[in-house]
Amino acid sequence: MSKADLTKQRIIEKAALIFNQNGYAGASIADIMRLTGLGKSKIYSYFKSKDEIAVAAFDYSLGLILAAAMAQVSIQNTATLRLHAFVDSFRGFTSQPIGTGGCPILNTAIESDDTHPILRLHVQSAVNNLRALISSIVELGIRQGEITVTTDHEQVSTILLVTIEGAIMMSKLYGNDVYLDRAIDHLHQYINGLSMPNKKTAAS
Amino acid sequence: MSKADLTKQRIIEKAALIFNQNGYAGASIADIMRLTGLGKSKIYSYFKSKDEIAVAAFDYSLGLILAAAMAQVSIQNTATLRLHAFVDSFRGFTSQPIGTGGCPILNTAIESDDTHPILRLHVQSAVNNLRALISSIVELGIRQGEITVTTDHEQVSTILLVTIEGAIMMSKLYGNDVYLDRAIDHLHQYINGLSMPNKKTAAS
Repeated sequence: MSKADLTKQRIIEKAALIFNQNGYAGASIADIMRLTGLGKSKIYSYFKSKDEIAVAAFDYSLGLILAAAMAQVSIQNTATLRLHAFVDSFRGFTSQPIGTGGCPILNTAIESDDTHPILRLHVQSAVNNLRALISSIVELGIRQGEITVTTDHEQVSTILLVTIEGAIMMSKLYGNDVYLDRAIDHLHQYINGLSMPNKKTAAS
Repeated sequence: MSKADLTKQRIIEKAALIFNQNGYAGASIADIMRLTGLGKSKIYSYFKSKDEIAVAAFDYSLGLILAAAMAQVSIQNTATLRLHAFVDSFRGFTSQPIGTGGCPILNTAIESDDTHPILRLHVQSAVNNLRALISSIVELGIRQGEITVTTDHEQVSTILLVTIEGAIMMSKLYGNDVYLDRAIDHLHQYINGLSMPNKKTAAS
């Protein structure tokens, strides 16, 4: 990486923290200047606008979440174990650096839905990627005879994502991981219920 | 209601819409002035600060949601039917006036968790009330022999609330009720799974 690329990356990483904690409307370029130690004109030599920084910061945060999920999913051999691993990749999420401000998907979805169409498109794209990941695992499981053929992959991806996102909100609200843990336990049971009767695996 | 009370109520109702759509940081007193047709000094003769308006607006919104849920819950005779009714009271939520900006609990939780301790306390209190409502129905169902005695009412209230909240986020994000409908269908199956084996009721 060139020095310029490193500086741009540093701005994105610090901006990701600020935007996730304070929201788009609540975060300021002054915050990013303070955290990076860079002046305003330096920051705007890399980005055209606050919008452009916000979009880059969101995409960076989502890359971290997808990478963490994929790291756990990819080492599992069966579709059912991959679904369990996906769900487990969110355990302790609110204590991780990227999660101390909550989930960037949830935060950015909530803030952008009525007010910020470009950011909203990036959130939709991020959720599309997560839905596609879950759907592909479910379809693999059906082909391999692990998951019942009547399983609707869109239904499974919706239930996994909405339960995890709602639980991150509740754990953040109370500052207590128990809500996220309960939701993850529930999803393990749900995933077990998708298995063909002769292929039941214990909830991990 | 006196004329002053009516004016104060009008400010709260309009502020509830603005805060729910634009968030606390994104909403301005100018927006409230525009929607109410009142001047700044008139608004501040009823409220000490933007904070005080935000708290009153949040509590008003939550009162509407609780009232809508209670209206459906209270006409049902059994605990299981009451849980089904609670979940169903959120169907079409994002198309209702209070839901066009999304769920005030979710919106305010996300925005206040790191930045606004007073609002955060009001969100916690609102979620406490919803948890207490669900828990009391589950405990009634256990006493009446409808719901299995090993059912943890805290687990049930967590699953119902996080699933509904996450689904409202996703339906708002895509502008499509299908995510909320899938989540509600899933919760009906979950509630049926809590019933004593001889008391199973069909998912409504």
